[in-house]
Amino acid sequence: MFDPNGPVLGIDPGLSCCGYGAILGRGEDCHVVASGVIRTPASDELPARLGQLADAIDALLEDLAPSAMAVERVLFQTNVRTAMSVAQASGLAMAAAARLGIPVVQYSPNEVKLAVTGSGRADKAQVQAMVARLLRLAAPPKPPDVADALALALCHTSGATVRSARNAVASPAPGYERAVAAALARDAIR
Amino acid sequence: MFDPNGPVLGIDPGLSCCGYGAILGRGEDCHVVASGVIRTPASDELPARLGQLADAIDALLEDLAPSAMAVERVLFQTNVRTAMSVAQASGLAMAAAARLGIPVVQYSPNEVKLAVTGSGRADKAQVQAMVARLLRLAAPPKPPDVADALALALCHTSGATVRSARNAVASPAPGYERAVAAALARDAIR
Repeated sequence: MFDPNGPVLGIDPGLSCCGYGAILGRGEDCHVVASGVIRTPASDELPARLGQLADAIDALLEDLAPSAMAVERVLFQTNVRTAMSVAQASGLAMAAAARLGIPVVQYSPNEVKLAVTGSGRADKAQVQAMVARLLRLAAPPKPPDVADALALALCHTSGATVRSARNAVASPAPGYERAVAAALARDAIR
Repeated sequence: MFDPNGPVLGIDPGLSCCGYGAILGRGEDCHVVASGVIRTPASDELPARLGQLADAIDALLEDLAPSAMAVERVLFQTNVRTAMSVAQASGLAMAAAARLGIPVVQYSPNEVKLAVTGSGRADKAQVQAMVARLLRLAAPPKPPDVADALALALCHTSGATVRSARNAVASPAPGYERAVAAALARDAIR
């Protein structure tokens, strides 16, 4: 289902563990409406696992009625061993959304890092910490696939805003910018 | 749909051009029931193209009610530039079949070549020529994606049989073996 007022759904594609995270609102009102992982058993054959993943993604889209899907762009150099199944999982997610008329945007890992932490070379821990702060969670979401999916959704919702906020932390800024600036300020204090 | 008496559907996965070929029967009765390609326009966005491909594959499965799907196993070393979209297309095909309870088997290009021509190092032209001979077609099917899909279906239907026929061309053999032996004999005469 497609709902223009629905949440932005981030998908960190994977066959063994596919992270998802849906956020609604912007700036300080931005909050998590659903998050988790879809797992398929390694003991099953590949086609069966792909079928299970497709079923689960369809159920998720039906349930959440997102306004957009943000999917990690799979880069081959990352890990050739898993790149195949990650590509297949991302393909299933994008096809499922497209068939329901849900707009899909792909973001590279570096775009997500840049949008959420202000640095395209941030490490995983930094991304996870910023996701927790921006969404006012007590701790970084686990497993990391959930944090990555939420980071994708954040990147889509407010990527440009977050970047501009990072560049002007000192200046007063409304909504999302304030949230990022506040999180960064807390960081700086520690 | 899954029909235990339905044809074997070969899929040569691709996003720009996805070949399919369905064959029914064995040996000399083996014949093509459907073949062609699914194309998606390069001018469309990737998610839309994946959605179109998924729709078309579902329609094909509904229409043909295959007893099995044979899909080319994507190897990364082949062509990194297209490997991503080929992997995504193969994932869509396998998921679609699995969701309908249709058994799926993947075959490597070498397994297909070996099954159809007797040599894992056969070139494309040889494979295409053998597909035409084994299925009694006037000419190799075009585009080559169709021939590749039919070769996959042949590999699934009679791979082992074809191989044993190649090893014993001289001895009398029933059905499929005879067809292969006859084709090879015609080859030898030229």
